[in-house]
Amino acid sequence: MAGEGVSVELYVEVQQFYARQMQALDSGKYETFAETFTEDGLFTHTPTRPAASTRAGIVADLYDFHAGAATDPVQRRHWFNMITLVPLDDGTIESTLYALVLRTRPGGQPEVTFSGTARDVLVRLDGRLHNRSRTVTHDGQR
Amino acid sequence: MAGEGVSVELYVEVQQFYARQMQALDSGKYETFAETFTEDGLFTHTPTRPAASTRAGIVADLYDFHAGAATDPVQRRHWFNMITLVPLDDGTIESTLYALVLRTRPGGQPEVTFSGTARDVLVRLDGRLHNRSRTVTHDGQR
Amino acid sequence: MAGEGVSVELYVEVQQFYARQMQALDSGKYETFAETFTEDGLFTHTPTRPAASTRAGIVADLYDFHAGAATDPVQRRHWFNMITLVPLDDGTIESTLYALVLRTRPGGQPEVTFSGTARDVLVRLDGRLHNRSRTVTHDGQR
Repeated sequence: MAGEGVSVELYVEVQQFYARQMQALDSGKYETFAETFTEDGLFTHTPTRPAASTRAGIVADLYDFHAGAATDPVQRRHWFNMITLVPLDDGTIESTLYALVLRTRPGGQPEVTFSGTARDVLVRLDGRLHNRSRTVTHDGQR
Repeated sequence: MAGEGVSVELYVEVQQFYARQMQALDSGKYETFAETFTEDGLFTHTPTRPAASTRAGIVADLYDFHAGAATDPVQRRHWFNMITLVPLDDGTIESTLYALVLRTRPGGQPEVTFSGTARDVLVRLDGRLHNRSRTVTHDGQR
Repeated sequence: MAGEGVSVELYVEVQQFYARQMQALDSGKYETFAETFTEDGLFTHTPTRPAASTRAGIVADLYDFHAGAATDPVQRRHWFNMITLVPLDDGTIESTLYALVLRTRPGGQPEVTFSGTARDVLVRLDGRLHNRSRTVTHDGQR
């Protein structure tokens, strides 16, 4: 272990976990995305909406949230970076990261529609990382 | 090896490879960029242009593509992130990543001019990674 | 060590160092940020301002630079990526990276206000990385 933060193994595992998780979300694979949460996972992504809880609840919430896609198709890309990890006493890992979202409409230019942070609690389940919770904070939110 | 994806060594090697490769491109070092491809490499970067093939072909294509730079100088920055790696049976590695391009004109503000993905096939040649191919997909492309 | 760049351990240590350092800056923890520099550290971040030097000087410079925040509150997010590392003969590490800054005003949409590079000289002090210097270059600067 080097002089800063968590082990190389854990840090890179989290990077790969996030890449896979968010590629699934941006591809509209909401079931795959929900499976990266624990069965009782809690996902708070938008201040004006209640948190989604349980995998089934997260799937339903995402289909509802993206219901406009049929009439207003967009490609979103979620970028995560600047990740700091803190192992907690109960074996979970607290992850704090910067997030941005790029949105592109057909024939349009990309727009940055979101800048903010996510605070995750990650747990290991059957050897793989899962989100027990994710709380997204929007920059500029009043 | 942790619970997700490829080995820590390979993942970080790819990150360093991409950083070096794209710093070369954005500095206008097209020969250096082309050398990160195999001799018969295939580079498909823009839907309206045919793929560039071979190192010499990639160099020629890049000089042609950036020919406007003399009269419209810009600084581009290619960012790659959210990388997933899948080792294939033939020893190559399939890499899928998010890309964005920032463009800044002299005295101007940065603009996000591109959001999309790249799908690479990476091979090891003399101990170092190279692109056998890269296929770029543009978000919003019709 | 893989075929490209520095060791996995060092590369990931630098990623974690930058994440922690820039989360501190964007949270307004200027003292914490300054402590990531050596005592005689040199920080050149804006072409129209002289370099800040020493930890105390960096803290004073940052409070001065952000003095407008009381009347124009913004949330900035500094993203670093595409990092290349070169170990130098004297034991220091030269780091070259892409940086972008997102700025969001209360109730507003995020804007990309900066794209450019940073060139760092990193040294190890009491086992942890520190900036001996950072020189920021702004894309589009005339």
